[in-house]
Amino acid sequence: MINIRPVLFVVGILLTTLAIFMFVPALADISVDNPDWRVFMVSAFFTLFVGVTLGLMNYGGSLSLNVRQTFLLTTAVWVVMAAFAALPFVFAELEMSYTDAFFEAMSGLTTTGSTVIIGLDSAPPGILLWRSLLQWLGGIGIIVMAIAILPMLGVGGMQLFHAESSDQSEKALPRATQISAVIAIIYLVLSLAAAIAYWSAGMTLFEAICHAMTTIATAGFSTSDASIAHFQSPAIEWTATIFMIIGSLPFILYFLFVSGRRMALWRDAQVRWFVAILLLAVVIMICWLWLVRDIAPATAIRYAAFNTVSVITGTGYASTDYGAWGGFAVTLLLFAMIIGGCSGSTTGGIKVFRFQMLYAMIMVQIRRLLQPHGVFVAQYNRKPIPDPVADAVMSFFFLFGLTYGLVAVMLAALGLDFMTAMSGAASALANVGPGLGDIIGPAGTYAPLPDAAKWILSIAMLLGRLEFFTVLVLFTSRFWQG
Amino acid sequence: MINIRPVLFVVGILLTTLAIFMFVPALADISVDNPDWRVFMVSAFFTLFVGVTLGLMNYGGSLSLNVRQTFLLTTAVWVVMAAFAALPFVFAELEMSYTDAFFEAMSGLTTTGSTVIIGLDSAPPGILLWRSLLQWLGGIGIIVMAIAILPMLGVGGMQLFHAESSDQSEKALPRATQISAVIAIIYLVLSLAAAIAYWSAGMTLFEAICHAMTTIATAGFSTSDASIAHFQSPAIEWTATIFMIIGSLPFILYFLFVSGRRMALWRDAQVRWFVAILLLAVVIMICWLWLVRDIAPATAIRYAAFNTVSVITGTGYASTDYGAWGGFAVTLLLFAMIIGGCSGSTTGGIKVFRFQMLYAMIMVQIRRLLQPHGVFVAQYNRKPIPDPVADAVMSFFFLFGLTYGLVAVMLAALGLDFMTAMSGAASALANVGPGLGDIIGPAGTYAPLPDAAKWILSIAMLLGRLEFFTVLVLFTSRFWQG
Repeated sequence: MINIRPVLFVVGILLTTLAIFMFVPALADISVDNPDWRVFMVSAFFTLFVGVTLGLMNYGGSLSLNVRQTFLLTTAVWVVMAAFAALPFVFAELEMSYTDAFFEAMSGLTTTGSTVIIGLDSAPPGILLWRSLLQWLGGIGIIVMAIAILPMLGVGGMQLFHAESSDQSEKALPRATQISAVIAIIYLVLSLAAAIAYWSAGMTLFEAICHAMTTIATAGFSTSDASIAHFQSPAIEWTATIFMIIGSLPFILYFLFVSGRRMALWRDAQVRWFVAILLLAVVIMICWLWLVRDIAPATAIRYAAFNTVSVITGTGYASTDYGAWGGFAVTLLLFAMIIGGCSGSTTGGIKVFRFQMLYAMIMVQIRRLLQPHGVFVAQYNRKPIPDPVADAVMSFFFLFGLTYGLVAVMLAALGLDFMTAMSGAASALANVGPGLGDIIGPAGTYAPLPDAAKWILSIAMLLGRLEFFTVLVLFTSRFWQG
Repeated sequence: MINIRPVLFVVGILLTTLAIFMFVPALADISVDNPDWRVFMVSAFFTLFVGVTLGLMNYGGSLSLNVRQTFLLTTAVWVVMAAFAALPFVFAELEMSYTDAFFEAMSGLTTTGSTVIIGLDSAPPGILLWRSLLQWLGGIGIIVMAIAILPMLGVGGMQLFHAESSDQSEKALPRATQISAVIAIIYLVLSLAAAIAYWSAGMTLFEAICHAMTTIATAGFSTSDASIAHFQSPAIEWTATIFMIIGSLPFILYFLFVSGRRMALWRDAQVRWFVAILLLAVVIMICWLWLVRDIAPATAIRYAAFNTVSVITGTGYASTDYGAWGGFAVTLLLFAMIIGGCSGSTTGGIKVFRFQMLYAMIMVQIRRLLQPHGVFVAQYNRKPIPDPVADAVMSFFFLFGLTYGLVAVMLAALGLDFMTAMSGAASALANVGPGLGDIIGPAGTYAPLPDAAKWILSIAMLLGRLEFFTVLVLFTSRFWQG
């Protein structure tokens, strides 16, 4: 049996943290005399009560978690946090069902950005701030997880980044928690920079803060139903484009940069591939909009750059209804969704380093076909890929494909049309946000979907965010037998 | 440099064989006084001339091909055969462009079954017979390739079946050519059985022969635009269902059965998984048609069984317009398309044994997550999967996914809608035949597509049929450097 006391202790601590953050939107609502402040106060005190109780009741044991406890903790944290983060949505004047509230909270914490709320433009500031805060917290949560937890667990090939981060700091061997603390500060500074940039570009201070939090987290909640299209401002769109890209790069490289290794960012193979993929996709989309859809070049560049970057980074902002760009754009964006950004960033999806490894493995495979007795080793970042990492990456890819098929078919079984089912599944698993088509596309919301679909999508967001294996391992009998 | 003389010699021999088969439709047209017999005669003599010339000019060298020559031969055979098999379509009274003719020939030889011909019901018997013959020849070609060539080359994990077939015949170690000869006889006998069954079920003798050839090859060309729906006969549909399944099982097991190992077929893990997948998909589809689409249970069973088996086995017959069964059916069938049948059968797609191996690898992956220092080995058919096989299977899956994305995006760039692009790419790569949607769905044809799309789809059929690596290896500089 697994000793779940230390797991519950950490969950308690994190719930307490969540509760403290709930006071922020309460203050925002108080400042504009909106009665919703009571909702946040009640939710905060209830969450605080549960969090402190869990913490106190399970205080005192060892805090060095074993592998099983770490798996359980990782999934439990995300589910429990979403369950409590949903409370303000239920109690607020929006009068959302718990299903809708949980969907919105899970979409927030996983930095997905799918929404079921219609009428954001007239929503009280507390709710808007809460949605942004959830994504911001989810964003730093996922970075810390990708740097400190997944490499240790060896999920989906992430162990490679465990080895790498310790290799690259031979002298002091800073512990993952220390690295995480520095990265949290970097995250905060980048968020502030984004807020200032948005403010300078013409947003109100409140809008700037909300969007800064959801941009750096490549998450995509906006303060307007129309998303970034609300502002109709090239300056805001380019600001968003830059900070979406910043949020998609490996945060460990910012840490190295701050630690004095100024060239780390440019030398990283993953960063170079990611930038190349972005450029290629944007240029192709510009050509399509300009040459085939007859959109003026300047407008084509503006729309293509912003919306394509938004989809590939999994942010999910829209500056126009790109779902209406025709069959080619829609098909390209569907596949772009699942690419994702770099490892150890706030993005979801398969992620660039896995494509690089899979590509390297295919090249090795082809060489082996020609020289069956030759010994060839696939490389990543000029280092050989260890067998367990290769296996984990390939299993991840297969599991993504398998889960994608299952989720899409289940959504279709609930009555969703082909386009909605196919894009909804991809969008949730890759933590993008909007799907494609009339219902869940950039011009729509997830509100009209049946409740069952919202639960399936919530689970899909969680699976994608925790890189599948972290969650699935809990559903094996072996896990619980010990 | 590669010595291509023995490659050209074998291509010459096979072209000569193709030419001889061209006389068969000529005889059919003569028997009904259709002037098209001249077309087949001209095509036959021209092909015969080229084939014999190639054979004679390159006669005399060693016939033991090395790895490179075998790769080149395999791809060259399929391309050259399609190029010549297209001739009767160009010259016949149908007046097809060479693009259309090549597409139809490639669709035939790869046992895909996509067609660009409208008006089959009034087409002369020669053309109908030629289409069926191409699929029948392609079917036995692919079985021989999967048994004798791909395992030797180690493409996509097929080397496993190399080891297996020699393991299972310790005494005599029959050579691959001997096995292939016996399997060719089995193929012929099964085709005859299918023809007799169709004839008994109510087809004319001509229809029965044509459909027998395209059923056992899980290929899907019909003698009517309406496909099997033309007959409106449950007896014919059930006959087709049975023989489509027979064509999807590993033919090596029929060989073992004939050699006295009666239980080989039932003991094979792949066969059991395949039957389970078929049953599951059919039952789900029955429930959907019956409970959601309000189709009477008897009709639901009849339609679901036939059309679902037709899609999963990659045959591509239709007994009704299953494209109109709603979003769920369409989404399910899209994913069903790419599954395919068993290794060493006439089916295309990813194939069941690869899913079994990938599943086993995921299970091992999960065990490894819980016990990072444990040693776990994935098994297939109660034997450990060797590392090179595992790598090859996983690379195959990734390459399938990557190619699928590229083909779908390219089709969409040519102006095809989302559904047509997505299903057309899947259907071609998995050698199914019809796609989904109004244009290329079971009620439509590929005729309206632009020429560029037909060439892309032809290449996709070839890539899928030759399991990707066989073709791609030719496009590496390493291949030609020696």
